[in-house]
Amino acid sequence: MPSASAVSRTRPSFATWLGTTNDITRTFLSAGGVPGLINMGGGLPEPGTFPVPEIARLAGEAVKAHPGQVLGYGPIEGLPELRDALAKRFSTPTTRLSRDNVFVTSGGMQGLDLLGKVLLDEGGLVAGQFPTYLGALDAWRPRQPAFRNMELDDPAFDAHVALAGAQFAYAVPNFSNPTGRMVPLATRKALVAAAHCTGTWLVEDDPYGLLQYDGEPLPRLIDISALGSDGTTYTGPVIYMGTLSKEIAPGLRIGWVIAEPEMIMALTMAKQGSDLCTSGLTQHIALAALEAGLIDRIQPLLLSTYRARRDALCDAMRTELGGWFEWEVPVGGMFVWAIARDPALDTDLLLHHALEAGVCVSPSSVFDAAGRNRRAIRINFTLNEPDRLAEGVRRLAEALVTMQARKP
Amino acid sequence: MPSASAVSRTRPSFATWLGTTNDITRTFLSAGGVPGLINMGGGLPEPGTFPVPEIARLAGEAVKAHPGQVLGYGPIEGLPELRDALAKRFSTPTTRLSRDNVFVTSGGMQGLDLLGKVLLDEGGLVAGQFPTYLGALDAWRPRQPAFRNMELDDPAFDAHVALAGAQFAYAVPNFSNPTGRMVPLATRKALVAAAHCTGTWLVEDDPYGLLQYDGEPLPRLIDISALGSDGTTYTGPVIYMGTLSKEIAPGLRIGWVIAEPEMIMALTMAKQGSDLCTSGLTQHIALAALEAGLIDRIQPLLLSTYRARRDALCDAMRTELGGWFEWEVPVGGMFVWAIARDPALDTDLLLHHALEAGVCVSPSSVFDAAGRNRRAIRINFTLNEPDRLAEGVRRLAEALVTMQARKP
Repeated sequence: MPSASAVSRTRPSFATWLGTTNDITRTFLSAGGVPGLINMGGGLPEPGTFPVPEIARLAGEAVKAHPGQVLGYGPIEGLPELRDALAKRFSTPTTRLSRDNVFVTSGGMQGLDLLGKVLLDEGGLVAGQFPTYLGALDAWRPRQPAFRNMELDDPAFDAHVALAGAQFAYAVPNFSNPTGRMVPLATRKALVAAAHCTGTWLVEDDPYGLLQYDGEPLPRLIDISALGSDGTTYTGPVIYMGTLSKEIAPGLRIGWVIAEPEMIMALTMAKQGSDLCTSGLTQHIALAALEAGLIDRIQPLLLSTYRARRDALCDAMRTELGGWFEWEVPVGGMFVWAIARDPALDTDLLLHHALEAGVCVSPSSVFDAAGRNRRAIRINFTLNEPDRLAEGVRRLAEALVTMQARKP
Repeated sequence: MPSASAVSRTRPSFATWLGTTNDITRTFLSAGGVPGLINMGGGLPEPGTFPVPEIARLAGEAVKAHPGQVLGYGPIEGLPELRDALAKRFSTPTTRLSRDNVFVTSGGMQGLDLLGKVLLDEGGLVAGQFPTYLGALDAWRPRQPAFRNMELDDPAFDAHVALAGAQFAYAVPNFSNPTGRMVPLATRKALVAAAHCTGTWLVEDDPYGLLQYDGEPLPRLIDISALGSDGTTYTGPVIYMGTLSKEIAPGLRIGWVIAEPEMIMALTMAKQGSDLCTSGLTQHIALAALEAGLIDRIQPLLLSTYRARRDALCDAMRTELGGWFEWEVPVGGMFVWAIARDPALDTDLLLHHALEAGVCVSPSSVFDAAGRNRRAIRINFTLNEPDRLAEGVRRLAEALVTMQARKP
C-alpha cells in the first residue's frame, strides 16, 4: 500500500478544524486497545451494572409490539410517547414541561453537536466552565468557535461578565467532567440570573446527576430558571441535557435536550441533516425502561458499586500519590481531578510514561480549548474493580518516578 | 405563552445556515401528520416488508449473546465484526477491501453529514449531480459550501471540468434521487477517470442499488476505480456509501462508508464529536442479519411489491397527468421524476394546492441548492398501495386544475 502521504498528495485538503485536533486525544483514545492496560482514562461504566435480561426482553417486545415505529423512520425530534415521558420525568410544580420542550438525541454527545450547529458560526463565542468536558470541545471544534473560560470556583467570578456576548454558556453543575465538583447553589443562581439578564443561552449538561454518593442534590439550573415563570410551558434560557448512558447503558445511545420550543425546532432542523432520526428500537426500549422504573431499580447497585470504587481509588491515591498531587474526594460522578503540587509537572508527558507503565489517565490539556493546562489529570473510578484501581495508581506512581528520573 | 419572537428577542441569533433553509422543506416535512393525506413526498419504504419476527428474535439474542458490546460504548468507527462483514460483502476479485476501508454510520444521512464535516470549510466547492438529493443538501448546509451543478445527462458534460477544484463530487449513480435515472456506463467511467486525474474525492451514494426492477446492474464507481489498482487494499478517490434503510429497515439506523483508510480515519475524528458511536444493539442486529442472509431473503418481496407499485403509479400518471408532465419510467429506486410541459408551471405553488387536495409530492426546488428549479416534481411509489397511488395522482390532477383556474 502506498504511504498515506503519497495517497493524499493530490487530494483536496481536509477541513481546517481537523488540523486543530489535539494529538493527545488520539493517544488517549487508541490506548483502549493495549492488552493489560488499566484504563482509567475514559468515562466508562461498569458493564456488570447493565440490566441485561430486562433489556433483552424489552428489545424483543418492542419490535413485536410496535414494528412500524421500531423499524420505520420516526419523527426527527423523537418518539412522541418518549418525549411525553421525559417531559413528565423532569416536570416539577414550577417547571412546566410539555412534549414541545423535549428533544430526543442519539446519545448525549449528539445534543452538544446539534447545539454547536444551531448556535455557532465560525468565531462564535462559547463561555465554558473551565476545565471543560473534552467531548464538548470535540463536538464544537468543527464550528471553530472562540472560547471564554469560566472559572466558577474563583471568588472573583462574575456570571454577568462571563455570559455577556456569548452565544451560550456551558456548565456541568453536578460532578463536573473533569473535576467531579458540584457547582454551589449561589453560583447556580448567579449563572441563571445572568442568563435571564443577558439573554445568553445557558447549557446545563447533566449526565451524572443521579450518581451522587454523599450529601443532598442541589436544584437544577432549569428549575431555578423556571421558578419565576408564569406557570406555562418553559420558555427560559436554560438548555438542559441528559442521557441514559450513565443511568442504564451507553449502548442504547439515547439522550435528551429540554429547552424552550423555539430551540427544539432549531435542533430539529439540525438533526434532520445529521441522522434524520434516532433508532425507533432504542427509543422504544428507553420508553419501556422509563415506564417500568428500570432506572430506579438499578440505581442502588450503581451507587454502591461506584461509591466503593471511589473510596478504593482515593485510598490508593493517598498512599501512592499524596506527595505528587492534591485532590478533593468527589461526592458524585465518575472522576477524581488531581492537580500536581509541582506547577512544572507536565501531565501530557506523564501520560506517555503512564502508558508505558500500563495505565491510562486523562491529561488536563484535553479539557482546555487552548490545550495549555498541563498540571492535572482526570482519573476514572467507575470502570475498574477496587484492586485494579489500586494497581493502576501504583503504576501511575511508578510512571511519575520514571519521568522524574529521566528528566534532562 | 409569549410569542416565539418575544421569547427570542434578547437571545443570541441562530447560526447563519438556519436562515437559508427552504420554507418548502418545512411544509413538506410537516405534511406527514395531516389526516387522510396521501404521502407521495418522502422516500419511505412499505412497512409490510419489514422482517418483524426475525428482527425481534435477533434483537433479543444480540443483547443476551453480547451484552458488553451491545450495551456499552463501542469503537467510534464501528463494530469490528460488522466492518469485516461489510468489507467482505463489497469486495470483488479486483476491489480489495479490508476492515480499514469500512466505517459504520448511524444511517446513511450521517455519512453525508460527516463527509461535510471533514471536507468542507465555508465556501468549499461541492460538484453535485443535478438535481441533487435533498438530504445531502440538508447535511452540508451547516458547512455553507458552494455548489457546482453537474448535469450528467447533458451531452456536453465534461467530468474533468466538473470535478476540477471541487472538494468532492457527489452522485447517486443507481436510480438517482430525485430523478430515478441510472448514470450510464460511459459517464460512470468518465467520472472515475476525472477523480483519478484531478484527485477530487468522488462520492458514490448508493442507497437504492438493490432495488432494480428491470435490466441489469451497472458496475459501481468504486469497482471501476479499483480496476487499475495493484491488488492491495483500496486507496482510490471513490467514497462509497450505503445503508440498510432500503434493504431491511430504516429504524435500525445503520449505514456505511467505504473509502481509503485515511478518509476512514478523518470520518472517525468527526464521528467522535457527533455521536461517539453507533448503538451496539443495532450494529449487532445488522451483523446477524447479514450473516443470516436476511437481505437476500426479503429482496424478492421488496422487488415484486415495488415493481407493481411503480407500474400502478405510471399507469395512473398516463391517464391523469400526461397533458401536464413528461417522465421516464424508472428501472429502479423509489421515485418518478416528472417535468412540467409548461416551463412556467411553478411546482412550489402546486405543492400548496396538492396539500389542500390531500396529496403530498416533492417539488423540484428542494433538490436545487439555489432553490430555483420549480418545473418538476418527485413522486414516491414505494409507500402506498396501487389504489392509493392512483387516488393520489387523481388528487394531484385536481390540484393542477384548481391552480390553473385560480391563476391571476
